[in-house]
Amino acid sequence: MEHAIIVAASVLGAGLAIGLAAIGAGVGNGTVTSKAIEGMARQPEAKGTILVNMLISVGLIEAIPIIAAVIAIVLVFANPFIK
Amino acid sequence: MEHAIIVAASVLGAGLAIGLAAIGAGVGNGTVTSKAIEGMARQPEAKGTILVNMLISVGLIEAIPIIAAVIAIVLVFANPFIK
Amino acid sequence: MEHAIIVAASVLGAGLAIGLAAIGAGVGNGTVTSKAIEGMARQPEAKGTILVNMLISVGLIEAIPIIAAVIAIVLVFANPFIK
Amino acid sequence: MEHAIIVAASVLGAGLAIGLAAIGAGVGNGTVTSKAIEGMARQPEAKGTILVNMLISVGLIEAIPIIAAVIAIVLVFANPFIK
Amino acid sequence: MEHAIIVAASVLGAGLAIGLAAIGAGVGNGTVTSKAIEGMARQPEAKGTILVNMLISVGLIEAIPIIAAVIAIVLVFANPFIK
Amino acid sequence: MEHAIIVAASVLGAGLAIGLAAIGAGVGNGTVTSKAIEGMARQPEAKGTILVNMLISVGLIEAIPIIAAVIAIVLVFANPFIK
Amino acid sequence: MEHAIIVAASVLGAGLAIGLAAIGAGVGNGTVTSKAIEGMARQPEAKGTILVNMLISVGLIEAIPIIAAVIAIVLVFANPFIK
Amino acid sequence: MEHAIIVAASVLGAGLAIGLAAIGAGVGNGTVTSKAIEGMARQPEAKGTILVNMLISVGLIEAIPIIAAVIAIVLVFANPFIK
Amino acid sequence: MEHAIIVAASVLGAGLAIGLAAIGAGVGNGTVTSKAIEGMARQPEAKGTILVNMLISVGLIEAIPIIAAVIAIVLVFANPFIK
Amino acid sequence: MEHAIIVAASVLGAGLAIGLAAIGAGVGNGTVTSKAIEGMARQPEAKGTILVNMLISVGLIEAIPIIAAVIAIVLVFANPFIK
Amino acid sequence: MEHAIIVAASVLGAGLAIGLAAIGAGVGNGTVTSKAIEGMARQPEAKGTILVNMLISVGLIEAIPIIAAVIAIVLVFANPFIK
Amino acid sequence: MEHAIIVAASVLGAGLAIGLAAIGAGVGNGTVTSKAIEGMARQPEAKGTILVNMLISVGLIEAIPIIAAVIAIVLVFANPFIK
Amino acid sequence: MEHAIIVAASVLGAGLAIGLAAIGAGVGNGTVTSKAIEGMARQPEAKGTILVNMLISVGLIEAIPIIAAVIAIVLVFANPFIK
Amino acid sequence: MEHAIIVAASVLGAGLAIGLAAIGAGVGNGTVTSKAIEGMARQPEAKGTILVNMLISVGLIEAIPIIAAVIAIVLVFANPFIK
Repeated sequence: MEHAIIVAASVLGAGLAIGLAAIGAGVGNGTVTSKAIEGMARQPEAKGTILVNMLISVGLIEAIPIIAAVIAIVLVFANPFIK
Repeated sequence: MEHAIIVAASVLGAGLAIGLAAIGAGVGNGTVTSKAIEGMARQPEAKGTILVNMLISVGLIEAIPIIAAVIAIVLVFANPFIK
Repeated sequence: MEHAIIVAASVLGAGLAIGLAAIGAGVGNGTVTSKAIEGMARQPEAKGTILVNMLISVGLIEAIPIIAAVIAIVLVFANPFIK
Repeated sequence: MEHAIIVAASVLGAGLAIGLAAIGAGVGNGTVTSKAIEGMARQPEAKGTILVNMLISVGLIEAIPIIAAVIAIVLVFANPFIK
Repeated sequence: MEHAIIVAASVLGAGLAIGLAAIGAGVGNGTVTSKAIEGMARQPEAKGTILVNMLISVGLIEAIPIIAAVIAIVLVFANPFIK
Repeated sequence: MEHAIIVAASVLGAGLAIGLAAIGAGVGNGTVTSKAIEGMARQPEAKGTILVNMLISVGLIEAIPIIAAVIAIVLVFANPFIK
Repeated sequence: MEHAIIVAASVLGAGLAIGLAAIGAGVGNGTVTSKAIEGMARQPEAKGTILVNMLISVGLIEAIPIIAAVIAIVLVFANPFIK
Repeated sequence: MEHAIIVAASVLGAGLAIGLAAIGAGVGNGTVTSKAIEGMARQPEAKGTILVNMLISVGLIEAIPIIAAVIAIVLVFANPFIK
Repeated sequence: MEHAIIVAASVLGAGLAIGLAAIGAGVGNGTVTSKAIEGMARQPEAKGTILVNMLISVGLIEAIPIIAAVIAIVLVFANPFIK
Repeated sequence: MEHAIIVAASVLGAGLAIGLAAIGAGVGNGTVTSKAIEGMARQPEAKGTILVNMLISVGLIEAIPIIAAVIAIVLVFANPFIK
Repeated sequence: MEHAIIVAASVLGAGLAIGLAAIGAGVGNGTVTSKAIEGMARQPEAKGTILVNMLISVGLIEAIPIIAAVIAIVLVFANPFIK
Repeated sequence: MEHAIIVAASVLGAGLAIGLAAIGAGVGNGTVTSKAIEGMARQPEAKGTILVNMLISVGLIEAIPIIAAVIAIVLVFANPFIK
Repeated sequence: MEHAIIVAASVLGAGLAIGLAAIGAGVGNGTVTSKAIEGMARQPEAKGTILVNMLISVGLIEAIPIIAAVIAIVLVFANPFIK
Repeated sequence: MEHAIIVAASVLGAGLAIGLAAIGAGVGNGTVTSKAIEGMARQPEAKGTILVNMLISVGLIEAIPIIAAVIAIVLVFANPFIK
């Protein structure tokens, strides 16, 4: 029974973490990339600068969601609480 | 009974993860692709640039939801907790 | 009893996944297609470009919801946890 | 008792799935069709194009809700878990 | 007791489905018909076109809510789970 | 006891259905009728057209809430599950 | 005990139905009457038309909330489930 | 015990009904009276008309909340379920 | 025990009713009085009219919350269900 | 035990009432005082009028939250249900 | 046990009250002070008036949250229900 | 057991209080400081005035959240209910 | 068992506190830093002033979330309730 | 059993903390980086300044979410409550 409770909590916690992280990453990335594309369409000569900065921005935004993803993956594939 | 609890939690966790991820991806992609189409209609000459960057943006946005999808798929089709 | 719990959780998980995915897909597609139709009405000469890109956008947006749909369908029609 | 739990979960899952799908479809279709009618009133000469694209858009938007509807219908009318 | 649980879940599921569907249909139809009336007041000469398309739009919007209504009606008036 | 559970679920389901339907109908009708009155005040010569279309719109919007009302009324006044 | 459960569910269901209906009616009527008063202040010559249509609108908006009110009143004052 | 459950449900149902109704009435009346005062400040000559119509509007808006208030009052002061 | 349940439900119901009513009244009054002060600052000559109508408006808005307050006060200070 | 339940419900009810009332009062007062300060900065000559009316407005807005505060204070400091 | 329930409810009630009050005070004060600073930057000559009125406004806004704070402090530091 | 319930409620109450307070303080301070920085960028000559008032504003906004923080700190580090 | 309940509540309380604090800090800092960057791009000559004030603002905004972080860290790493 | 409860609470708390933190970081970073890219597209000559400040801003925004991530990581990988 103890084993089942640990597994059940791990799976629900992983689903919660990755689901909320996906919302955060989706909203954050959607905001920044839509602005970047708008900027590229208006100032084509700034295309290179915008693309580089968009990628930096996306990287910064996904820092925390990636940790959430790692935690979720570890909980599912290499759960440290289950011997 | 233990088996049933693990399966039930896995299925609910998978549904939660993929459902929230779908909302995040839908909102994020909808924002960026609508801006891209607006840009294309206004600056047809920037069509190529916008399309390429839209695809990059969508790829970046879907990074986290894809992980959520993978976790959900694994929980349903290849559950590592069920021997 | 064990069988009933697995089935109940599968059905609720499937309903949750497909329901949230439908909201995500509806909002995302509604945003992009309304922008596309607005663009077509204003720049009829860009009709072809907009239509092609709208379809690409919809395809990209529905990537995650389709996975959610597949998971929901599998949970209902070919549940791998029920022998 | 087992039969009752399966039926109860199926009915609640079906209600949840079709209800959330109806919200998603209503919001998505409402957005796109209102833009289409606005476009038709402003550019009557683009009437044909807009109508065709509105129908395509609605079809794309309703892809996921239709799957939700099918799952709900199957759960109610041809439940595969009830022998 | 089993009969009571099935009936209770059916009624709650039906109420949930039709209630959420009514919100979806109300919001979606309200958006499109208000745009249509705005369009008619501004371009009276496009009255016919707008009316026809408004009816098509409403039909498309109500596709999913109607299925929800059918499911709710069946659950209340001709419940297939009750012999 | 069984009788009490069925009645309790019927009453709560009816309250839920009619309550959510009233919100949907209120929001939807409020949107369309306020636009209609705005239109009448600006284009008095289009008064007839707007009124007719407003009534059609309200009829279309209330299609689903009316079904919800019917289901709620039946559950309270002519509950088919109570012999 | 059975009597108490029926009464408790009736009262909670009635409170839920009338409360949600009051929100729906308040929001819907507030939208339409504020637009009507705005219209009257700007086009005093259209006062009669606007008032008549405002009353029709309010009547249409309150159709569903009135049913909710009737159901709530019946559940409290003439509960058909209590002999 | 039965008496206590009926009283508890009546009090909670009354609190819920009057609380939600107060929100609905507050929002609805706030919308319409603020528009009326704005109109009076701009068109002082229409003061009489606006005041009369504001009172009619408030009366119409409070129709449903008043019923909710009556139900709440009856449940607290003259509860028909308590002999 | 019965006494405790009635008291507990009365206190929670009173807290709920007065709390929600305070939100409704705060939002409604805040909307109307801010518009009134804006009007006074712009049309100082209409000061009298606006003040009178602001007071009438506030009185109308607080009609329902006052009933909620009365119910809450009665439930706490003169609870009719406690002998 | 009975004593503990009454005290627990009183404290939670008081916390709920004063907490929600503080939100209502904060939002309502924030709206009206910010408009008043905006008005004073723009029309310094109307300073007196605006200040007086701002105080009247705040007094009217806080009418209901003050009752909530009184109820909460009484429940904590002079609970009438505890002998 | 009775002692523990009273303490637990007091602490949770205090946390709820002060937490919601902090949100209300934060939002209300944020609105009014941001408007005041905007006004000072635009009309530096009205600096004194605005500052005085900003402080009055903040005092009025914090009236209710302060009561909530007092109740929370009393519940934690001088709980009247614990002898 | 009694000790554990008191500690558990204290910790959850402290987490709730400080968490909600952080949201309130974050939103309130974010509003006022962003306006202050906007003002400084536009009227550099008013820099001193704005900074002083921004600090006063932040101090006023954080009054209630600081109390929440104190309560949370006391509950965790010097819990008065635990001997 | 007592030990487990204290630990469980501490961990959940810490997660709640730091999670809500992160939302508050993220929203507040995001508002102020985006305004600061907008100001720097428009008035490059005010760069120094804006940066200094942005840092002061961020420091003020994070005052409360830092306390939340400290509480969460203490609950996890140096829990005072566990001997 | 005690071990299982501690593990389950740790995992759920970690999922909650990292999930909410990801939303906060995503929204905050998305706001600031989108403004930065907008600024770069408009004032290419301020590119260096904006980039440096964007990175400082992101660092400041992620201060609290990083603590949340650390807490979540510790709870999963080096749980101090499990010997």
